[in-house]
Amino acid sequence: MVLAEGRTREQKRDLCRALTAAAISAVGARPEQVRIVIQETPLDNYAVAGVTFAERAEDALEEPMK
Amino acid sequence: MVLAEGRTREQKRDLCRALTAAAISAVGARPEQVRIVIQETPLDNYAVAGVTFAERAEDALEEPMK
Amino acid sequence: MVLAEGRTREQKRDLCRALTAAAISAVGARPEQVRIVIQETPLDNYAVAGVTFAERAEDALEEPMK
Amino acid sequence: MVLAEGRTREQKRDLCRALTAAAISAVGARPEQVRIVIQETPLDNYAVAGVTFAERAEDALEEPMK
Amino acid sequence: MVLAEGRTREQKRDLCRALTAAAISAVGARPEQVRIVIQETPLDNYAVAGVTFAERAEDALEEPMK
Amino acid sequence: MVLAEGRTREQKRDLCRALTAAAISAVGARPEQVRIVIQETPLDNYAVAGVTFAERAEDALEEPMK
Repeated sequence: MVLAEGRTREQKRDLCRALTAAAISAVGARPEQVRIVIQETPLDNYAVAGVTFAERAEDALEEPMK
Repeated sequence: MVLAEGRTREQKRDLCRALTAAAISAVGARPEQVRIVIQETPLDNYAVAGVTFAERAEDALEEPMK
Repeated sequence: MVLAEGRTREQKRDLCRALTAAAISAVGARPEQVRIVIQETPLDNYAVAGVTFAERAEDALEEPMK
Repeated sequence: MVLAEGRTREQKRDLCRALTAAAISAVGARPEQVRIVIQETPLDNYAVAGVTFAERAEDALEEPMK
Repeated sequence: MVLAEGRTREQKRDLCRALTAAAISAVGARPEQVRIVIQETPLDNYAVAGVTFAERAEDALEEPMK
Repeated sequence: MVLAEGRTREQKRDLCRALTAAAISAVGARPEQVRIVIQETPLDNYAVAGVTFAERAEDALEEPMK
């Protein structure tokens, strides 16, 4: 799975547990059959609608305080 | 995510809901940020330890009833 | 790349040409270095916010005409 | 792994065995750790240098016999 | 998408814009539907014909100047 | 392909050679058609049965010597 960089080690461990439990309950997979690979992606390498999350963060910083 | 062929439509829908809920609870993702693509894989195209799941199913059929 | 099922053969050919031209112009890749694999995904296997595109299509059909 | 459509069942089984043996010998993986998922791809969905393998096959058919 | 390491931040931003524009024009995707994940790959982890791009770079350095 | 972090450069080069030879022998691929991308994955980002390989390594360290 693809995950934007920035989560803590604990969050990633919680995520693996929660996703595994979800797969077991939803489709009856055996625990050892559930293999999770987290592809951590820098904000510079992750874009929606042509704009990377790094650019969005920069734009948000440049916006005047309302 | 990779899923061996053979699950029902309902199971796949349950799986998408459960995985999404898991991602939201574990890393605080917003629902619309959670995108799931199920890559359904025929048993002939899925192998562990060099043996496909189709071969394993065939072997199981040939085993004498205990 | 992941693409929801339903595009024509011509659209997929146009897509391969356009993506290849984009990669060549943006990062100076050589044409033969650009390899595109389209993973066509059934609407039942593609979900955002926990709801598959097949479910969304069904819901849209059940909505009363405005 | 991505594989153009068109191989036989036996070829795919040979491939899974050969790739698994390669992984075990090269990096000391245990057999049960080696999981292979073959993503069979139609020639219409597989392009190099912007041209799909289906288009290449059509062009080859239209070429006059030398 | 897989991209060999070594491109600048600006090149990656241009790439995301160009690929998104290509997807919109070729298959009529809506901008917010186009999600790009760049999997930057070290030259040691990227091989064609069994030889990594790092090995190819080393070989090129060892070749006598013509 | 996904590979847990921790292998040497030489092991990865051997792996690329061995996998390429396997693909050539099993399905008659041409060498230049075989493209390998190693996605090296930190032990914190790789889980089986909901437990990451980093957690498993920590548990193994805490076990009393037998």
